[in-house]
Amino acid sequence: MTKPLILVTNDDGITSKGIRKLVDVMKNIGDVVVVAPNSPQSGKGHAITIGEPLRLYATDIFDEIDEYECSGTPADCVKLAKHYILKDRKPDLVVSGINHGSNSSISILYSGTMSAAIEGAIEGIPAIGFSLCDFKEDAEFDHALPYIERITRESLSHGIPKGVALNVNIPAINQEPIKGIVVCRQANAKWQETFDYRVDPNGRGYFWMAGDFINFDSEKGDTDVWALDNNYISIVPSQFDLTEYEAVRELQSWNL
Amino acid sequence: MTKPLILVTNDDGITSKGIRKLVDVMKNIGDVVVVAPNSPQSGKGHAITIGEPLRLYATDIFDEIDEYECSGTPADCVKLAKHYILKDRKPDLVVSGINHGSNSSISILYSGTMSAAIEGAIEGIPAIGFSLCDFKEDAEFDHALPYIERITRESLSHGIPKGVALNVNIPAINQEPIKGIVVCRQANAKWQETFDYRVDPNGRGYFWMAGDFINFDSEKGDTDVWALDNNYISIVPSQFDLTEYEAVRELQSWNL
Repeated sequence: MTKPLILVTNDDGITSKGIRKLVDVMKNIGDVVVVAPNSPQSGKGHAITIGEPLRLYATDIFDEIDEYECSGTPADCVKLAKHYILKDRKPDLVVSGINHGSNSSISILYSGTMSAAIEGAIEGIPAIGFSLCDFKEDAEFDHALPYIERITRESLSHGIPKGVALNVNIPAINQEPIKGIVVCRQANAKWQETFDYRVDPNGRGYFWMAGDFINFDSEKGDTDVWALDNNYISIVPSQFDLTEYEAVRELQSWNL
Repeated sequence: MTKPLILVTNDDGITSKGIRKLVDVMKNIGDVVVVAPNSPQSGKGHAITIGEPLRLYATDIFDEIDEYECSGTPADCVKLAKHYILKDRKPDLVVSGINHGSNSSISILYSGTMSAAIEGAIEGIPAIGFSLCDFKEDAEFDHALPYIERITRESLSHGIPKGVALNVNIPAINQEPIKGIVVCRQANAKWQETFDYRVDPNGRGYFWMAGDFINFDSEKGDTDVWALDNNYISIVPSQFDLTEYEAVRELQSWNL
């Protein structure tokens, strides 16, 4: 039987620890091709490169797989992989990550990791973004790997619904073992930003953006944030039709 | 009566023609504050600036309004405006645009214009993104302005549903007058990319990304693309909960 073709990308860049761990898992499951950014792309959301050229080079970071680094965003990597590098063989799965840091709740919108997975879904390819709730460069990933393998194999065997990418978040390692996996919804939350004003050595002002996470759903047990807070892995099936259908009906009664 | 406070931003940059036209309209309606990128940010999606400082300077481009240019993305501009510049008076409305180019259908995901509007919605502020289906720098906007004023006034009087940003797209000027305004859903479509490989003067390869728009809903009359193709203005109420609820139920039956 032909092994599935798995496209691996991320947003922390091709040399990050998280993508190495993800490649290790995916090599157990299928034929792996890596196309990943040549620099960190955290917070790039669903950015694509317009008006500037893209660079793409073969690399030799991993063992015995086809691998490329790209000057663009995670979404660019998926587009280049699908329409250029792999134009003769459509991938069976796109996986993105393992991100250093959570992409639960509203963070999905800012996430380069999930934009790559959603780009896969737009292309009609089953897609999963994996994120670990630990942003440290040397974060510990090993407790997550058996779960990532299981979720990936289940996804390949059941098939992910059309137009859906899975947003998988995994608790950072802690005293307790992970309790299990919960399929749930995106918590309604936001980042409350603060801006730290400083003056550079040339006398010009600048700001560092920082933020506190505010969970409007903190009382509710059916969200990704609840799952992670309670030491479960969360899976949110996520889609790219942003239409709010109830509001369509409401606005149709306006005098426009 | 106090005039509404309107925050104006865009993704083509503070010096573009589209934002000047939008400011002109908004001055008829309320008190205007502009916080916009200091450089073009097309295709930046919902990117935010992490790990790099932000710059913010007062400018003097428009007449008699508070105005600032920012080194960051459209989403950064809304965050800085809400949590720093306007921290003592919450805006009554965020408007973004007028974008030079369509943001209908799947393009909403890649759109800096709409990311600013959605950022407004996340902050609980009514928000509208306006885009003209003409990407030229000197595009003709004047036929759109009465419609933009009407949509804005209706939005302020009815109130936009919570958590929703309006994605308004306007046909480019043509022989026929605009037929009206349609509230509709986001068409299911994608960009089919092509990559044009070239070699630079130093002998290194690079790619230009280009693409063809493929509309999977071309037979259907309830989408934004249909509206625009038929010379209507489209309004898609758009939200930021990406959860696909049917898929949640489906995946809960998996053996995870």
